[in-house]
Amino acid sequence: MTALHDLSIAEAGIKLREGALTSTALTEALLARITEMEPVLNAFITVTPERALADAKQADADFAAGIDKGPMQGIPYGLKDIYGTAGIRTTCHSRVLLDNVPDEDCVVEQKFKDGGGVLLGKLGTFEFALGGPAFDLPFPPARNPWNTDHQTGGSSSGSGAAIAASYMRTAMGSDTGGSIRGPAAYCGTVGIKPTYGRVSRRGIFPLSYTLDHAGPLTQSVEDAALTMQVISGHDPLDPASADVPVPNFSEGLDAGVQGLRIGYTRAFYIHNEMANPEIIAALDKTAETLAGLGADVVEVDMPSWELFQACGSTIMSSEAYTIHEADLKTRPTAYGRYAYQRIIAGGLVSASDYINALRLRRELTDIVNSGPLTACDALLAPTGLTPANRLDDFGRDAGPWKGMLTMVYNVTGNPALSVPIGFSANGLPLGCQIVGRPFDEVMCFRVGAALEAALGVASSRPDLAPALAAE
Amino acid sequence: MTALHDLSIAEAGIKLREGALTSTALTEALLARITEMEPVLNAFITVTPERALADAKQADADFAAGIDKGPMQGIPYGLKDIYGTAGIRTTCHSRVLLDNVPDEDCVVEQKFKDGGGVLLGKLGTFEFALGGPAFDLPFPPARNPWNTDHQTGGSSSGSGAAIAASYMRTAMGSDTGGSIRGPAAYCGTVGIKPTYGRVSRRGIFPLSYTLDHAGPLTQSVEDAALTMQVISGHDPLDPASADVPVPNFSEGLDAGVQGLRIGYTRAFYIHNEMANPEIIAALDKTAETLAGLGADVVEVDMPSWELFQACGSTIMSSEAYTIHEADLKTRPTAYGRYAYQRIIAGGLVSASDYINALRLRRELTDIVNSGPLTACDALLAPTGLTPANRLDDFGRDAGPWKGMLTMVYNVTGNPALSVPIGFSANGLPLGCQIVGRPFDEVMCFRVGAALEAALGVASSRPDLAPALAAE
Repeated sequence: MTALHDLSIAEAGIKLREGALTSTALTEALLARITEMEPVLNAFITVTPERALADAKQADADFAAGIDKGPMQGIPYGLKDIYGTAGIRTTCHSRVLLDNVPDEDCVVEQKFKDGGGVLLGKLGTFEFALGGPAFDLPFPPARNPWNTDHQTGGSSSGSGAAIAASYMRTAMGSDTGGSIRGPAAYCGTVGIKPTYGRVSRRGIFPLSYTLDHAGPLTQSVEDAALTMQVISGHDPLDPASADVPVPNFSEGLDAGVQGLRIGYTRAFYIHNEMANPEIIAALDKTAETLAGLGADVVEVDMPSWELFQACGSTIMSSEAYTIHEADLKTRPTAYGRYAYQRIIAGGLVSASDYINALRLRRELTDIVNSGPLTACDALLAPTGLTPANRLDDFGRDAGPWKGMLTMVYNVTGNPALSVPIGFSANGLPLGCQIVGRPFDEVMCFRVGAALEAALGVASSRPDLAPALAAE
Repeated sequence: MTALHDLSIAEAGIKLREGALTSTALTEALLARITEMEPVLNAFITVTPERALADAKQADADFAAGIDKGPMQGIPYGLKDIYGTAGIRTTCHSRVLLDNVPDEDCVVEQKFKDGGGVLLGKLGTFEFALGGPAFDLPFPPARNPWNTDHQTGGSSSGSGAAIAASYMRTAMGSDTGGSIRGPAAYCGTVGIKPTYGRVSRRGIFPLSYTLDHAGPLTQSVEDAALTMQVISGHDPLDPASADVPVPNFSEGLDAGVQGLRIGYTRAFYIHNEMANPEIIAALDKTAETLAGLGADVVEVDMPSWELFQACGSTIMSSEAYTIHEADLKTRPTAYGRYAYQRIIAGGLVSASDYINALRLRRELTDIVNSGPLTACDALLAPTGLTPANRLDDFGRDAGPWKGMLTMVYNVTGNPALSVPIGFSANGLPLGCQIVGRPFDEVMCFRVGAALEAALGVASSRPDLAPALAAE
């Protein structure tokens, strides 16, 4: 019999509806697993067992009464601790907000509640989704379940660890420069940065209005599609929210890639000095796999990576500084070193530099969408250029995203899915991005599901015994 | 018989279609009028008689062949000299672009061409729609046809003078802080700043991406509605363009105001130290007139004027500096004093100040639309706080818009129509704004047409004999 923590959202949903499983039993099993492993992994900032069991009880009562609120009913989930939760501390992993208890739920949490989900708790992040991994914050950094000496990537660090450790099947992250896809790749999970405007960010603590995206990390592509079904939709009160139809995100999961044209952005990354030979080999193998499945895989050109990075960094630091200016000036020492360093520089950016970055953003977006993504149905790209590095491998100024090729699609806003594609020689996960046209997450999931089935690595979970033994 | 220069667009259109008038005859009459008066008025930078007569000949041939391209066919028009025109010098009234001949037409010019219009030429502006009225530029400032010692307002100075002088019935202006409505009020014409996103700005030299609006100055509300019909529509290549339906802009012209609720923003302006008692009296009379026509006129509250002005100024100067930075640095003396002074300050604005201004813009927009413009169908407000001042009344640092209450709706993007409401004791025109909900220009025109009919001043044109005699 499949262990409860190995049931997918769909599998658990069937058992819950058959009466073969209660949400309470599932929730209790996961809470026990969290209690056992959390001393090593530090994925959570706040576990919410009472709330979880109450949610589970309500879901069970609803099932018994014939009430069905959809695929998340009775399903446990987690939220990165920048997601505002009414009555539940929301710290942003920062001393600055250590006592912050919001009055209102963010929109995503409202949607999980409306869908009958079971909140297990609030997950660790880099401070304000930016400053980490760090040991000078009020909570320790999450550890990578594949090797607890390594980081999880960030900033959705706790979400990556929680999914890799099978604490749950879906955990919300946020992605301003790669903060969903990075942890997904480093932790061997699936992670989707949806199209800019697809998921409301209202009530989530902002890092950058222009670049922030909310999306889930999950154990499978199907889990990601089901989560997206619950959290998507137009929100007139999020200025970035798009008033577009919500598709059936699962509709292409079994369609395969026969006849699709996939653009492989190989020249975009292989000359980068950080590109690890294992990554290049794994990506090349992924391209071959897609071709073997019947896709027409072609190499495509992209503008220089440095342009995307300069554009995104200018926008992100300017907006982050604007958001944090008052606190940075009145209580700078409440911030950890990394967050302070990374945000304060935004105070030196001029309006004209920022405006030029916004103009460049539009130009780069047009180039990507009128070029590669007109010629191709989707793009294949690495997520990071290396596997997760060690937690003791961060100098005073090291940027945790130096090896990430993710900011590209924060700048353009295209949907980008990270899926596992294998392991490094030392047993750490490797990932790739599948990038779609605007609002075509369905295509990302379609290609991702085909890869997942063909490569067989997406459902891999680490053997956590060594870590627990070490503890 | 009505003089040819007094025929409205609709009246001329009937005669053209009846064969009682040719576009060539109309065009020749207007060109003769321009030749006669232009030495005094300086409305034009470039008159295009050959182009005009070719356009007229084509329109006459089309009428003869039964081809009807709509209300502008055979109708003369003018363009502010920031509107890019293929093969026709487009100077922005600046030494910087003295030899600039674009390869392409702006979208508005394309639409006039597609509609069979007759281009009389390119009209004077403040330098780059900002620096003026000034005597240190390669072309003199336009003079007010009502009193040539006075300015026309700006920056669509030539457009205001041209309409007041009956050179034509419709002339395009642009409005970043009031540059359509100001000249309209000072020159006794109608002027519409449409909703942000209604008219494409592509190919028009930008002053501020966030605040620029393109729209016409005209001799009547009906002329404005007909012009809007030709120039409106979604343009995917203008980032601000809205994909919304284009209404029949003339549909409410005869509907009257019975039963409408009009919000009079009286407290918003009467305590302003610049508010001229004649303006207050004329606005109060306008409110009474609307009430007499059956409207429910109520006083409404608005956020402080200084907030709108600070917000708009910060955005405008930052964006203008970004656009002009290279020229300002490499050839500063090519700019006139006013443009240089007003743009250079934008180089000192920080990204965070600019971002905060964008945030404030959103808040102010929400307040106006959820408050006064939810309670009311339209708002009544002054356009300027004084009549046009004298051209010799500008010091080194005087801002020409100090007495304008127009930036409010550049910040919010609401449609705002300026219509004439009377004259000062010394015979200069006074105007008011009718402000609508987003994309409800129809309501602005409806209220404006009712005022026009009731007050009887909109069709007033100055007796130009004194000016010409002085010449």
